[in-house]
Amino acid sequence: MIAVFGHLNPDTDAITAALVYARLLTRQGVDATAYRLGDLNFETAFVLEQAGVDAPALLPELPAGAAVALVDHNESAQSAPNLAELNVTRVVDHHKLGDLTTAQPPYLRFEPVGCTGTILLKLHREAGLPVEALDARLMLSAILSDTLHFRSPTTTQEDRDAVAFLAPVAGIEDVEAYALAMFAAKSDLGDTPADTLLRMDYKVFPFGGVAAPHSWGIGVIETTNPGYVFGRQAELLAAMDQAKAQDGLSGVLLSVVDILNETNRTLVLSATEEKVLREAFGAGVDGQVADLGGRISRKKQIVPTLEGYFAPQG
Amino acid sequence: MIAVFGHLNPDTDAITAALVYARLLTRQGVDATAYRLGDLNFETAFVLEQAGVDAPALLPELPAGAAVALVDHNESAQSAPNLAELNVTRVVDHHKLGDLTTAQPPYLRFEPVGCTGTILLKLHREAGLPVEALDARLMLSAILSDTLHFRSPTTTQEDRDAVAFLAPVAGIEDVEAYALAMFAAKSDLGDTPADTLLRMDYKVFPFGGVAAPHSWGIGVIETTNPGYVFGRQAELLAAMDQAKAQDGLSGVLLSVVDILNETNRTLVLSATEEKVLREAFGAGVDGQVADLGGRISRKKQIVPTLEGYFAPQG
Repeated sequence: MIAVFGHLNPDTDAITAALVYARLLTRQGVDATAYRLGDLNFETAFVLEQAGVDAPALLPELPAGAAVALVDHNESAQSAPNLAELNVTRVVDHHKLGDLTTAQPPYLRFEPVGCTGTILLKLHREAGLPVEALDARLMLSAILSDTLHFRSPTTTQEDRDAVAFLAPVAGIEDVEAYALAMFAAKSDLGDTPADTLLRMDYKVFPFGGVAAPHSWGIGVIETTNPGYVFGRQAELLAAMDQAKAQDGLSGVLLSVVDILNETNRTLVLSATEEKVLREAFGAGVDGQVADLGGRISRKKQIVPTLEGYFAPQG
Repeated sequence: MIAVFGHLNPDTDAITAALVYARLLTRQGVDATAYRLGDLNFETAFVLEQAGVDAPALLPELPAGAAVALVDHNESAQSAPNLAELNVTRVVDHHKLGDLTTAQPPYLRFEPVGCTGTILLKLHREAGLPVEALDARLMLSAILSDTLHFRSPTTTQEDRDAVAFLAPVAGIEDVEAYALAMFAAKSDLGDTPADTLLRMDYKVFPFGGVAAPHSWGIGVIETTNPGYVFGRQAELLAAMDQAKAQDGLSGVLLSVVDILNETNRTLVLSATEEKVLREAFGAGVDGQVADLGGRISRKKQIVPTLEGYFAPQG
């Protein structure tokens, strides 16, 4: 059996890619089971409920040498705690390649597209397998989520073409209305504890190379209702302070992305983070909020700039 | 422009994969040029001559940030000297994943098949492009070379299917006769200097992880005429001794693979190598020759065993 899972603090792509890839492998005669590495966010819960499918089980502790397939991630900091002991036989991903190594030749499929779902659609086609309605709905939901319905600069023509192909197969007539319902579900944060809000879509990135290694935690809240998030600013800053100490980080950021207006205002914990945001992005900082303008993609607009800023001088 | 190249000490797959992938990218509208990272071996020279195609140029020193595509390798020790400064945007490979990282999401295509050529054939199909006769001949030659015409345990059904498809496109009626001609060309080593023989298909592997890092150099001579190689045993051992000192290695091996009889007899430099071969493989050693039986694949039968032998105890 091969265990298929996405990253920690799973988003819609991490969960649906695990489900879809496990189903695809099973159809191809590979015994595969989907797992998750954390709680569903409200958007993903909405997507699975609409699709009428159960969430995958939490990944149990796997024995050393167990075969696994990674989707939507490849760095150990975002994966199963004992990844280094596991046998990574397959990866389907659309992120930069991090610290992954394998003991045997693997199956790797990385493409610089907006969503793992877009690559999974290609794998169906290449396998000559018709796309089932459930898989179509899950892949389409992931693409809308990852690209913020094509608003993100990570969007490629292949992502747009995939949604155009998948919508009728999934039986979704009004893609715009479905995307807005997903984003509304994501924004309905209710009385979620501040630490949970911070860690909903939160990744730790190593910067500075071997010369000056240090890590930053970067959370993102994509919402159609940023006013709600800033109404809880004090609580969130306290949660960020705690995460910084607990995880031994050099910096913590929480970007609040206004999906509909395509803007990013980022909570700034201390003078350390403020200095970096001012110098790396030329961002204006007012109180403890930095204006990052239209930089709504952590992957494409935030992390690469920080990597350049922290890179050892050659 | 993107520079496409295979590994140092290029073999037929490293050279032909660079040529074929550069041609495929060009047909797809990507400005790509093939290069090589060393001299052609006799087999590859025969293949290119039969195909009527010039060898790619030697890779010039590329400026930092230059876009490159790697074929048939991914580890920095086997690549361009300044790989860490280059922008790796694409990799097509069938080896285990080593120390490669990327700054941006790349296009990666790894499959656990016997030859890069087998993957390149799939890329033609997925792009909807007909395979041209020259590309068919180059891919077929690489597959025959890497799999020793299906004798190697790295051979998969996909490699066999690829050759069956490619032979008529390439206009090669008798695949067995063509493979034997390739292997005869490879075995016609003439007065090649001993150091060149050692380094013809030679790779340096890091073992022991961060706990006890050290490197071994492992050369392979695949030949239909092993008697010729053992006739030059003293010279080869001297070349191995020099390589060990010069490259700061912990061990050096030279495996002489008898293609037709599918056996591996490996030259043993010192008591260090003898101890490891006896303990890791249970090999009998007579004089300075270890009998490694039918282990004819460095990738599948030699390196993984040494990795296990040298792995830090958990």
